[in-house]
Amino acid sequence: MILDIINKKRLGEELSYKELDYFFNGYLDGKVADYQMSSLLMAICINGMTDEEIFALTKIFIDSGDVLDFSDIPGIKVDKHSTGGIGDKTTLIIAPIVASIGVPVIKMSGRGLGYTGGTIDKLESIPGFRIDLSDEEIINQVHKINLVVTGQTAELVPMDKVIYALRDVTGTVSSIPLIASSVMSKKIAGGADKILIDIKVGNGALLQTKAEAKKLSELMIKIGEVYHVEVRTIISDMNVPLGYAIGNSLEVLEAIEVLKGREKDNNLVELCYELATEMVSMGKEINKGEAYNLVLDSINSGAAYNKFLEMIGLQGGDIQGVCISDDTYKIKSSVSGTIKKINALELGKLSLALGAGKLSKEDEIDYTVGIKLNKLVGDTVKKGDVLATLYIKGDIPEFNIDDIFKIN
Amino acid sequence: MILDIINKKRLGEELSYKELDYFFNGYLDGKVADYQMSSLLMAICINGMTDEEIFALTKIFIDSGDVLDFSDIPGIKVDKHSTGGIGDKTTLIIAPIVASIGVPVIKMSGRGLGYTGGTIDKLESIPGFRIDLSDEEIINQVHKINLVVTGQTAELVPMDKVIYALRDVTGTVSSIPLIASSVMSKKIAGGADKILIDIKVGNGALLQTKAEAKKLSELMIKIGEVYHVEVRTIISDMNVPLGYAIGNSLEVLEAIEVLKGREKDNNLVELCYELATEMVSMGKEINKGEAYNLVLDSINSGAAYNKFLEMIGLQGGDIQGVCISDDTYKIKSSVSGTIKKINALELGKLSLALGAGKLSKEDEIDYTVGIKLNKLVGDTVKKGDVLATLYIKGDIPEFNIDDIFKIN
Repeated sequence: MILDIINKKRLGEELSYKELDYFFNGYLDGKVADYQMSSLLMAICINGMTDEEIFALTKIFIDSGDVLDFSDIPGIKVDKHSTGGIGDKTTLIIAPIVASIGVPVIKMSGRGLGYTGGTIDKLESIPGFRIDLSDEEIINQVHKINLVVTGQTAELVPMDKVIYALRDVTGTVSSIPLIASSVMSKKIAGGADKILIDIKVGNGALLQTKAEAKKLSELMIKIGEVYHVEVRTIISDMNVPLGYAIGNSLEVLEAIEVLKGREKDNNLVELCYELATEMVSMGKEINKGEAYNLVLDSINSGAAYNKFLEMIGLQGGDIQGVCISDDTYKIKSSVSGTIKKINALELGKLSLALGAGKLSKEDEIDYTVGIKLNKLVGDTVKKGDVLATLYIKGDIPEFNIDDIFKIN
Repeated sequence: MILDIINKKRLGEELSYKELDYFFNGYLDGKVADYQMSSLLMAICINGMTDEEIFALTKIFIDSGDVLDFSDIPGIKVDKHSTGGIGDKTTLIIAPIVASIGVPVIKMSGRGLGYTGGTIDKLESIPGFRIDLSDEEIINQVHKINLVVTGQTAELVPMDKVIYALRDVTGTVSSIPLIASSVMSKKIAGGADKILIDIKVGNGALLQTKAEAKKLSELMIKIGEVYHVEVRTIISDMNVPLGYAIGNSLEVLEAIEVLKGREKDNNLVELCYELATEMVSMGKEINKGEAYNLVLDSINSGAAYNKFLEMIGLQGGDIQGVCISDDTYKIKSSVSGTIKKINALELGKLSLALGAGKLSKEDEIDYTVGIKLNKLVGDTVKKGDVLATLYIKGDIPEFNIDDIFKIN
């Protein structure tokens, strides 16, 4: 049976719900071995899956754990997911904006495994901030301030955890059907009424082409239809990092600047406004023009920043305590010209080398290290100008300026 | 590096010798995990390999163990390999024929894992027959009688053993590049001057279509060219079992009948004459017409059978001691008509159920059980006629006559 299923997918045939269920739950039960699962995952990567197979797999994923229910909380709960990128601190910014406008936000975020920390790692750089709220604490806090950002409480989609860990070490990460069922099963099990997905494309992202992003987008919308959950997607660029800060404490400080309205016209601010507008439009069922005005008001009136401070306070965080390393190294330009490109992937690698991210679960993140870009794409620079500041602990890792900045 | 290699093959790109060497030797060293190797093997199954990749993999396989050298033995040593099928006892027949004509035959055979035993299992059904000759004994015996059939002595291609074991349980057996490098590496490491390959096609074989068989054939010939070893191939049918006996002792007894010239016009005799003719033509460098006449002479004069008896005697076997189970069950026809088809795969499954083969290395083979076909394809039968006789130990396994015999 196990080999029959692998052989079918090897030949590009469609697997039934029963076959997928047997194989994936057999893996959890120990009947299917690691090397058999990775063989099937590779066959799926190359030969793809039909929509029916993807719906079946999503259901099998969801059924593997708990499904949360926040129907007691009034209002339309809108969840947001990003497929991940370098310098992506959007959740820290848009969650308070949207909550301040009256849309309840219950965001369960993950830790990062890769070049930089995840949202939860970033929040943990705020001393005292709790990311382990109980179900009761979550409900109470949302009733009180409309907003909570915390780690996963329940056993949400345990199957995704083991499958993802295997995909990570077997070259089977970049499969659109597998990405779609992984993300959607977690969001649906998380109890969202509506879901906004930020699909990143570029060298710092999982997907490299717009065509793949569109396929993933269509698939996620279809999966949402099966569960009567409205899904909207935004496809955004990840060839350039988001904003100017990469690294956990540095990103929290940048998020605060955006919430205070001090940053206006960079790619981070634009994306945050776009995502927040979409979420408000979905949560309040209003058009995007109205929603956009509410987002601007929230920033300009200070409501968004106040909402952020409320959350930090209720979850025990000390915003004054966020600190970055005193030890810095300035990367200076050896030429004069205009910055044409800043390479997200290379900055991600450098950030990892500095200690801001981790490659294995055993690694420790240093919250105080990272990279601050002093110049962004489009800026003109003179020879000797500071392009970026590294916040370091110990030695400066090896890197090549020309791989990061394209200036002419 | 490990993931880069898997990802390259996932995307259908060509791997270099260095990359293949790193990955496959890394597997032997424990640096590459089972689940990573199976992921790469599946990517190879689906995306294929270029000729250069196949040559590289064959070399890596050969280099993993010893390479035998029989250049001290005069004459051209011709080896023969079959990709395996139901009732295939051809080695027992053609090795003595070819040796009796003056072509030295050093045949290192394997055990069976699957529906029936391998050549070595069949020979072990002869009481006392030794299949563990030392290198010295092999050389001495070939000098004396031109013929030896034994198990592998040296550590020939140890990498193939571990890779094959993994392929067997991960649905990655049916890959033409992997079959080609597995078979050819063993034959070349075995010290053959020339190689004849019997490629089986049909439901009882690894390959299901003639097109696949042709591809495999071309590939093996090309690999031979790289090593300056002449390779010829025969593509033969494996939808129908070879001859009338399936099961170890039964097959030895059938082989003796063919060697005595008592069988003339069935598919087994035809294939044996064809293979022996090809081997004699290669070993003596003569045309096939001449070679065919020598083969006929060898059978008709008794030289082939005498050569067989010489080998059995020198290797300690007692041919009188070969025994089959007394307990039999006769399968009778429920209709009258002509036999249109006899299904090799179904007979293989039945033979396995009887105990003539083994699925795991821990299983034990019973040499005395098996199946004897009383009727062959083309025979007319009346209702109540015996179609086949099962030689059993204990219960009769479940089977469906109509799956085995197609009569109308």
